[in-house]
This record gives sequence, C-alpha cells and structure tokens, in this order.
Amino acid sequence: MAAEFDSDIFVNQTAPGEYDARLRPGWVVGGGVNGGYLLATIGNAIRHAVPAKPDPISISAYYLSASVPGPARVLTRVRREGGSVATVAADLLQGDEQRIAALATFGDLAGLPGDVATTAREPDLPDRERCVPNSMAPEDIRRIAPMMERFDMLFHPEQVGWAVGQPSGNGVISAWFRLKDGREPDPISLLAVVDLLPPVTFDLGRPGWAPTLELTAHVRAVPAPGWLKVRHATRNVAGGMFEEDCEVWDATGRLVAQSRQLARLPRRTTATAG
Amino acid sequence: MAAEFDSDIFVNQTAPGEYDARLRPGWVVGGGVNGGYLLATIGNAIRHAVPAKPDPISISAYYLSASVPGPARVLTRVRREGGSVATVAADLLQGDEQRIAALATFGDLAGLPGDVATTAREPDLPDRERCVPNSMAPEDIRRIAPMMERFDMLFHPEQVGWAVGQPSGNGVISAWFRLKDGREPDPISLLAVVDLLPPVTFDLGRPGWAPTLELTAHVRAVPAPGWLKVRHATRNVAGGMFEEDCEVWDATGRLVAQSRQLARLPRRTTATAG
Repeated sequence: MAAEFDSDIFVNQTAPGEYDARLRPGWVVGGGVNGGYLLATIGNAIRHAVPAKPDPISISAYYLSASVPGPARVLTRVRREGGSVATVAADLLQGDEQRIAALATFGDLAGLPGDVATTAREPDLPDRERCVPNSMAPEDIRRIAPMMERFDMLFHPEQVGWAVGQPSGNGVISAWFRLKDGREPDPISLLAVVDLLPPVTFDLGRPGWAPTLELTAHVRAVPAPGWLKVRHATRNVAGGMFEEDCEVWDATGRLVAQSRQLARLPRRTTATAG
Repeated sequence: MAAEFDSDIFVNQTAPGEYDARLRPGWVVGGGVNGGYLLATIGNAIRHAVPAKPDPISISAYYLSASVPGPARVLTRVRREGGSVATVAADLLQGDEQRIAALATFGDLAGLPGDVATTAREPDLPDRERCVPNSMAPEDIRRIAPMMERFDMLFHPEQVGWAVGQPSGNGVISAWFRLKDGREPDPISLLAVVDLLPPVTFDLGRPGWAPTLELTAHVRAVPAPGWLKVRHATRNVAGGMFEEDCEVWDATGRLVAQSRQLARLPRRTTATAG
C-alpha cells in the first residue's frame, strides 16, 4: 500500500507530458493548499516526464493564485535534455486558472561526485523528547491548518514562544521532522519539507498567512532514512515582503536541501495562522 | 548619449513580446558571456513587455547553454498580470540554440510600503582607497575576462589573497562596485551586479570557470545613486556543486538585492579564470 504522501502527490499521465493530479484537502493551510505540497506534486510529474533524470536538483516556482483542494493538471515541457540533466518547464492549473509556473533541472543525485565540504552548521536541536510537538497545537490552529496532521514536527523549545504570544523576535524557527506514517524522506518529499514550517514571521510577532511569491529549492543529496532537521530564517523584512531561507539536514548530518522564498508579509490586522 | 550599460542591454521589439538583442563581446568571461549581463538583458526585455510593472521583484534563470557574443532573441510571454505584479516567462535564444529559460515577477518597487526591518548586516568594507581595485588585475586575467573593463570593483583587501595564490578558505568575497562610466544603479542593473564578482570558489582555492545552473535574484528596493557594496558567500560545497548567495547594498546602507545561484564547481585541473 502506498504511503499517504505518495497517494497525495500521485499523478496520472493523460497525454505526453500532461498529468492529472488531485490536490488533497489534508494539505490545506490558511487561505489555500500548502506551497511545498504543490511543489512536490509538480516535482512528481516532472520525474515522470524525464524518467532518466529522476531527482530534482533545482526547482523554481512562481505562485500565481491560491490553489484549492480538487482536481488539477500539470503540463510539462522538456526545454533541454542533456547527458546528465534535463530542464523542464511545468505549469499547475485548476480548470482555466493558472496556479503555478515552474522551471526545474532534474538529474541523478546518486550519480554526483561524493565530495562534501559543507561549512554551514547543522541546526542545534535538543533531543526530540525535549522538543515541542505539533500535536500540542491548539484546536483552532489545527482547524485552520489540517496539513499539520500529515507530519510530526518537534519544535526547538526556545523557538515556539510565538505559540503562546511570546515570539522571540529573532526570525528563526527549527524543528525535527518526519512524515506521519513513517514514510522515509526522498528528493521529492524534500520539495514539500522546505515549505512546511510555520512562516518565520510568526517568530517576529507577525502571525498570519504569508503568501509565497516565489520559491526556489536546491536538492543537494539523497536524504538518508530517519528524522530530518529543518530550520528557516529571515534577514530582510522590508517593503511588505520577506525572504525565507530554509535548510533541511538528514539523519547523518548532511545538508540535503536549501531553499529561499520571497513572500508577502501577513497583514498586521490578520489573525489567521498559515 | 546612452550609458554603455544601457546600449549593451538594449533590446529592439520585433513582434509583440519578441525582442532582438546583441550580446556584446565586452561581457565575455571565461567560457561564455556573463550570466548577470544576460539576466539584465532579459530583464530589460520583460520591462518592455509589461511597461506598467517596470521593476524586477524576482527573476529565476536556468542556464541551458553558454551564450556567445552576437545576435540573440528574447521571447516573452505574460503568464499572469494582476493589479500590482505581472509574472512573465522569457527565453533567450541564439539561432536555434536555447540559452536561458527564465520566469520573473515584475512590479513597481517605488510603490511598495516603506517599512524596513532588515537584520542582515552590511558588508564591513574598508574605505575605497584602502581596497584593491580590479584595474590591478594581471594582464592574463583581463584577457580572459574583458568584462572587468565594464566596472570598478574594489575588493576587501583581506579577501583577495586568491589573486596571489593565497585564498583565505573562507568562501567570502566582497567589494565596492560601480559601473564604469558612472551610470547609476537601478533595479535592472542590479540583475547584472549579483553575478559580477569572481566565483566565490576562488576564495576556496578552486579558481576556474563555475558555470551557473540556476540563479534567482530578488530586487527589494530601488537603489540610491552611488557606490554599491556587493558580497557573496557559499556554505555548501558538495557533490560537485555549490550555492552562492549574493547581497547588494546601496549607498544609504539598504539591502537592495539578494540572489542565490547553484553552480558547478570548477574542475580541479582547470586554470582559466571566469
């Protein structure tokens, strides 16, 4: 039986390069369907379009309108396929509405050279039993964000003050992460993981939905099985927007994915979580 | 008379959304035409395609093959235009060869809210007279990189050891910057500026051309006139690739652009600069 995540991102080919998908209500958060889940669904379609290049290396998504649960189509066009990588354009549509325009380069991560000279430092997370699980979220949050039932997220205890009205003001949130049914991480699921933490603006005392304008993710290695560590931060809140940099580290301590998104700041008057 | 930079990125409309450009030999570096100059040329075409949204807010470019000096075409398609922003797909071609596939969101930077709560810190550059100018580069470097004649770049004196075979190993390069003829910075020129420093791998003792796979730039404000500060760094050299994060700060100390690119590591045996 397929893991929940794999059924949720399932795509069915209807013509060369064209795929049907079904966006699940379980991935709703705030005013729409989670952008990371949408990215993984698009990634899954691209993987089918260029089967010899199974892994996302880089993907850039421009979010044009909020997706809703229900049927969707992913249209892919191979722009260039070489010996080691393929670049593909992909659109996600619902009816006549364009939801996302994306570009991606896929390849074979397992075939890359084995050198690792990472100087970034792994998030300093306490043991899992000392972290604050998302299962403790209040009922009103869970109603607005049903996607929180799809995974275990164990927050750094010093970075969840925002949940009780005491944000740190640092603009950093980190957590342990795994998909709910023990489905192990892979390069496609990492495309979701980079956009699943609450917006980093929560930690700045700006709760509310923060719509993504653009998100680019680089997947740098096939993740090892086990819990992931996820951390995101912002350094430039200005002009009604902010950038959010996310890192995903695997159980062996390898930095397996990096992403950056540009999002709109939540309105000061908004009280919804997303 | 137009400034050199403006003639260099000039585009001429040939049909709705279609533009001719001429890639100048003055922007050659290593094995091709500089990716930032190409990005600014594409940005200039998009600006003409959506004149009511004159400024790049986000642009993502996938570099498919190395460009050469000579004629090029930029084909744009508006994917969605709303009240405040427009998202446009653009391709740069030379003959039948696809060079770049891009997606971008344009808008009006001057119309954004005035809030600035940046926590990133401005590069700590010594006074310009204490920095090391690119005009001091040896003749063999200048022959490989004629683009160095297009601008003044004054390097942090502690971050140019690579020029004399003593890289710091930190993976950071920063410099003062201005276009050669005093042409002031604007949102379009910033698209070039984010890719003009030598590859950050020079500072890691890995000189040579580092071909960009993908580059995304966010322009966050209209830059003030005057010298810019540019800094880039890498934190994840692995699997034959590295990410390079670039920041551009204007003369008032505002962080006006952020970019990240994914590039291939130079081959260990290569001795060319680029």
